[in-house]
Amino acid sequence: MTRLSELGESHVLERILSHNRSGSQVIIGPGDDAAVTAVDGNLVSTADMLVENEDFTRAWLDWSRLGTKAAAQNLSDVCVMGAKPHGLLVSLAVPDSTKIEDLEALFAGIVAEAARAGEELGCEVPVIGGDLSSSGLIVIAITALGTVGDHAAITRSGAQPGDSIYLAGTIGRAAAGLDLLFAGVDGDAEVARNDPQLDESLTELITTQLAPQPDYAAVLQMREASAMIDVSDGLSTDLGRVAAASGVHAGIDRASLQDLIDPLLPAAQHLVGSIEGVEPDEGTAGAASEAEELALSWVLNGGEDHGFVASSGQFDTPPVGWRRIGEMRVGSGVSLDGVPVPTSGFSHFGK
Amino acid sequence: MTRLSELGESHVLERILSHNRSGSQVIIGPGDDAAVTAVDGNLVSTADMLVENEDFTRAWLDWSRLGTKAAAQNLSDVCVMGAKPHGLLVSLAVPDSTKIEDLEALFAGIVAEAARAGEELGCEVPVIGGDLSSSGLIVIAITALGTVGDHAAITRSGAQPGDSIYLAGTIGRAAAGLDLLFAGVDGDAEVARNDPQLDESLTELITTQLAPQPDYAAVLQMREASAMIDVSDGLSTDLGRVAAASGVHAGIDRASLQDLIDPLLPAAQHLVGSIEGVEPDEGTAGAASEAEELALSWVLNGGEDHGFVASSGQFDTPPVGWRRIGEMRVGSGVSLDGVPVPTSGFSHFGK
Repeated sequence: MTRLSELGESHVLERILSHNRSGSQVIIGPGDDAAVTAVDGNLVSTADMLVENEDFTRAWLDWSRLGTKAAAQNLSDVCVMGAKPHGLLVSLAVPDSTKIEDLEALFAGIVAEAARAGEELGCEVPVIGGDLSSSGLIVIAITALGTVGDHAAITRSGAQPGDSIYLAGTIGRAAAGLDLLFAGVDGDAEVARNDPQLDESLTELITTQLAPQPDYAAVLQMREASAMIDVSDGLSTDLGRVAAASGVHAGIDRASLQDLIDPLLPAAQHLVGSIEGVEPDEGTAGAASEAEELALSWVLNGGEDHGFVASSGQFDTPPVGWRRIGEMRVGSGVSLDGVPVPTSGFSHFGK
Repeated sequence: MTRLSELGESHVLERILSHNRSGSQVIIGPGDDAAVTAVDGNLVSTADMLVENEDFTRAWLDWSRLGTKAAAQNLSDVCVMGAKPHGLLVSLAVPDSTKIEDLEALFAGIVAEAARAGEELGCEVPVIGGDLSSSGLIVIAITALGTVGDHAAITRSGAQPGDSIYLAGTIGRAAAGLDLLFAGVDGDAEVARNDPQLDESLTELITTQLAPQPDYAAVLQMREASAMIDVSDGLSTDLGRVAAASGVHAGIDRASLQDLIDPLLPAAQHLVGSIEGVEPDEGTAGAASEAEELALSWVLNGGEDHGFVASSGQFDTPPVGWRRIGEMRVGSGVSLDGVPVPTSGFSHFGK
């Protein structure tokens, strides 16, 4: 076990970069003042930062999964514009006392998720630059770059009344995982799998929270979408953003969400049971309904699975990887079976 | 005075982005999942992060200058590749209790420095994306993008024996400013200017540390340089990097540095005097020599002014904005008047 303070910056960088992949677009990679890459088409760029104690805690810390999560949330933002990822810039700040093996696991997690996106989309996604510094708190700031070729980028603002609303991937699972973590269910799936008390389905939800795996390839089926967004802050919030940007109303069919809700019921029952301490002989119906409500709220308001939502008027049946969950109409806001849904999900700074 | 926690994320973003500029290359700016921009030529990209307590402290905190510094250190890395800046992605994490006016000053500082680079180089440099989150520590992670057109990017590896070594801008001033700050000289120039005890020259050095202003335009005179680097970690270290990457020896002439050293002598004398408590009647010659040594060490080993060093065999007299400071020779390493100079400057993680 070697700590970073025993290695020095240049050796730490060497160890980390040994996990990197290259790409044919890279003219000058990490090691100079800046990277130089050959870009084909318009450039797509996005940046996201994960900060310890705000976005994760040491109690849940699995370095490799943290890398997966950091990469996934940036790559999904690039892909959902209809773009192919081009490369990542990775800035890391970690404590001096960090083990080099942990930092390598973090970086390798980033590289692996970028490679997965590249395999799904037929492109290479190397880490082309970044920064490394020491800090009391762990901070991971990633910029993901991508390119859009012949067709224009897909924005939030093109949805039309009459368009169907489609979902790829899952929603609600990461939010369920977060509530399980907050309730003290152990975040380390390896430990959890050895604990017969814990249902495997619960540990899988935690894994979705800690290391989401967006269905990047699904975007390829939606290149002609009128609008598309990454569900990072919750279906209600993110669909609300599309509705606001496009000047339409987004009507969700509750029935279309049922097979996203059902797999979350064991976790919801686990939490409702443990919080309420409901006796089996009394109030079982009440607890079941409460669990159903909790599962629905995860699906409606939970982000971080990085499912994708798109609108299109072009399909009779949803393309592979997508399900129809509603329709855009004249108006504003979001509704569930006609009942308005609040669109203010997670917000930094309290409101 | 309004704190971020009273405003909520969307209003905070609105306030910040009111300070942003746009650019004709921007197809989709901040507000969607990712930005889309039109790139002309190959892409140049670099990322740097400033972390509170590692790169600055609250005691020195001037939000606007912090923005200047964060932008300058990224923009200089793009420019020194021979590229024109294209845009910035800015990820900020600040405490909930931060005043909105302070966060606006930070962002406006970034925007102003990007605009200054754009004016010097004839391009527009908007903030095209980023991220905002709350955190116990202030973190500023910036990615700077640029483009290189007809000519290839300038790297660290093209220096040839016989090339002259040139410097643009200053070196040593930010390091002197840092030592003054560590010695308790107040970092706020406004306060300092009202304090007759403090020489204006000292406060200017502190300003260089807190808000360096690289001479971006100088790069335009060095487009045919064989190698170029931003002096961020110190002349010895960064010239050492060029020497290592190019497989040459970099010989510095001490005499060429004298008019960089001289303006630092008052600060060096101030610090040597306050540290040593030297009596005027004894050891004055010793203190003077110690001050000269300190000033030389700032010039040789201090980074963060973001001066630029380049090598070229093409000029009889240095181009405007540049001075000749030595020559590349066969060999390796760096020397000052023939005496080897250590090339291991600032390093994170202790070594």
